[in-house]
Amino acid sequence: MQMTSEDLIEVTEFTWPKGYDADSTHAGLKPDQDDMGWIYSEEPADAAGVYTTNQFQAAPTKLTKQTINLAHKLQAVVMNAGNANSCNGSQGETDAIMMQKMAADRLQIDPHMVGIASTGVIGEPLPMAKIKAGISQLKLTKNVGVTKAILTTDTHPKTITVKCLIGGKVVTTTGFCKGSGMIHPNMATMLGFVTTDAAIAGNDLQQLLSATVDETFNQITVDGDTSTNDMVVVMANGAAGNDPLKETDSDYPTFVVAFKKVLTHLAQEIAGDGEGASKLVEVNVTGVYDHLEGQQVAKAIVGSNLVKAMIFGEDGNWGRIMQAIGQTTAHVDLDGVSIAINDLQLVKNSLGTGIDDAEVSKTLNQPKVTIDVDLNAGQASGTAWGCDLTYKYVQINASYRS
Amino acid sequence: MQMTSEDLIEVTEFTWPKGYDADSTHAGLKPDQDDMGWIYSEEPADAAGVYTTNQFQAAPTKLTKQTINLAHKLQAVVMNAGNANSCNGSQGETDAIMMQKMAADRLQIDPHMVGIASTGVIGEPLPMAKIKAGISQLKLTKNVGVTKAILTTDTHPKTITVKCLIGGKVVTTTGFCKGSGMIHPNMATMLGFVTTDAAIAGNDLQQLLSATVDETFNQITVDGDTSTNDMVVVMANGAAGNDPLKETDSDYPTFVVAFKKVLTHLAQEIAGDGEGASKLVEVNVTGVYDHLEGQQVAKAIVGSNLVKAMIFGEDGNWGRIMQAIGQTTAHVDLDGVSIAINDLQLVKNSLGTGIDDAEVSKTLNQPKVTIDVDLNAGQASGTAWGCDLTYKYVQINASYRS
Repeated sequence: MQMTSEDLIEVTEFTWPKGYDADSTHAGLKPDQDDMGWIYSEEPADAAGVYTTNQFQAAPTKLTKQTINLAHKLQAVVMNAGNANSCNGSQGETDAIMMQKMAADRLQIDPHMVGIASTGVIGEPLPMAKIKAGISQLKLTKNVGVTKAILTTDTHPKTITVKCLIGGKVVTTTGFCKGSGMIHPNMATMLGFVTTDAAIAGNDLQQLLSATVDETFNQITVDGDTSTNDMVVVMANGAAGNDPLKETDSDYPTFVVAFKKVLTHLAQEIAGDGEGASKLVEVNVTGVYDHLEGQQVAKAIVGSNLVKAMIFGEDGNWGRIMQAIGQTTAHVDLDGVSIAINDLQLVKNSLGTGIDDAEVSKTLNQPKVTIDVDLNAGQASGTAWGCDLTYKYVQINASYRS
Repeated sequence: MQMTSEDLIEVTEFTWPKGYDADSTHAGLKPDQDDMGWIYSEEPADAAGVYTTNQFQAAPTKLTKQTINLAHKLQAVVMNAGNANSCNGSQGETDAIMMQKMAADRLQIDPHMVGIASTGVIGEPLPMAKIKAGISQLKLTKNVGVTKAILTTDTHPKTITVKCLIGGKVVTTTGFCKGSGMIHPNMATMLGFVTTDAAIAGNDLQQLLSATVDETFNQITVDGDTSTNDMVVVMANGAAGNDPLKETDSDYPTFVVAFKKVLTHLAQEIAGDGEGASKLVEVNVTGVYDHLEGQQVAKAIVGSNLVKAMIFGEDGNWGRIMQAIGQTTAHVDLDGVSIAINDLQLVKNSLGTGIDDAEVSKTLNQPKVTIDVDLNAGQASGTAWGCDLTYKYVQINASYRS
């Protein structure tokens, strides 16, 4: 395999980076599919995380944050679906600590090297007997079932593996996540796990993760709701054998591109698989005063129920996009806005171009819809991803527990 | 009829206050129902208005704002449904001025005494020949058809008449409005018209209107979207014969109660008739740090798609209410939150009470759902209104133009 440091090779087949094991099992939290899993690094890994901004941070999220903040180190993450262990008071915190300890005991490592993650129904006690049984069943294999075991209303696993060359060494970075409902700014019902065999210090990894999440996961929205449990955790075990990456290294930009490719892919996968979604929607806003306003406007458009329903209905009612723009406080040339959907120009100078409705409907009848907006108010830009609002979204959320 | 100054009598039958005429007609903007109308005061009335905060303020909204701001006086308001005259550039502004002038000519009054209002599809030129024909057909009658003529996706007219005694005179205050989609903070696809025969100076009326709108219309949300056309306009023609009301008058509080009763009723009507809604939802938040936070949290709960879908599904998944609270930046006693739905206690001290799911489902199967939340973080409170998220909402908005 010939690679230059600029070549990023997306490996379609999901594979663990060097030095990682994983497994999944059916612990009985969900009726008949794997609902627990873990990932494990043979050596302690540098680690970083970002966490939900919801005030009711769930016990496992809070504990993992505390654990990572100790020394930015992890050797394992154990996770379950079917129960979020959220809003369970002090019992929930005790159970989270117990879950962490049980995994640590089984792996014979320090509890402070174990992250935990839970997703599912809020406000029901974690069934600890099942958690215990599940952990006792988990093994150290190359099994990728954990990418399925964390799913809730997702329709398919979301995974990616990217390889790049750092200091002459092949570095493999792998990500998987779950998403679907409650997807909005700031880590919403979303669990993301990235493992890399690159060597990079915990603090540097944290900085890279935080910056990249702002451009990826924090720019997707399914329903504007932010859950209590969300986090993205990264482990970097150095098994690739490169010298620890520094921001000043000539290879650092390559790793950044690879890392961002992983997170962008996962974010898009979550948006496109939003609850009930039939289409992935990407909004690119240009001509913006600054990047922050670009991100704000892109997200306002992709998050508007009216725009989302319009896309589901394949109806080019562009007034709703104008209205979503106008709701923001961003700088806008009120007579200079352009809007295109899948390259069809609908609006120029803030006026309809008179384009044929049927042509717009036709382009909206595709699995990916790209909305390009130019505010004519600056040089910056922003991007966000979301999905359409469908009958199925309502159906799923009207009866999640049943 | 015996009334004390404290008695407010809600007249179920809608009637114009003294000195007002009105009419409606079919101008052909919509297929087969009245789509234009006006209200007219025999004498110039004091007037006030509040307007959409959307940056793309529609031409009629902008013009009416300018008109009222001249001297806080109006003698008539002419309105149409079927076309919002929004996002039509300078042509839209010319058409708005023309519509205002045509109505003024027909009524033989100054154009600066005429407000205009348009609602409907965005981005299509106002068909001026139809507008002209419509205005020529309108007469000065006691006809209440205008309360229907302004409707878009509303399922029924929204009206109220309240009488009260001010300085020994019977004062009648009447309101009607249209709402439905794009209902959110800050005047969203919402037109409201209040006429009273009270005497009150324009500036005082403006102050009262702005304060009351903050507590009523600005606390309803259907879909989080704010339209380009919304406004509430009030006219006070003094035909009741009272001395002009001042804040220091002993009767002033009575008028405030009557006025707020009108706006609260209209706001609730809009929320309960939100697009596709099957239930009116009221959220009362107590134990709040300050009133602003109370309003913020109430609106966050009532505006959450997940909460709205849960209510439609009649599923007491209270974790979603916690999650909506936690998304705000309001002060919260994280271990001290209580939640009740229709007086059934679901959460105490931030923990589920273990109430029977079936009982909760049963209470959710009612046309009005009241959610009471106590944040245990202060003495203030807040209230907001909204509706459930239904299949029908998606259906309506996936095919609004078709």
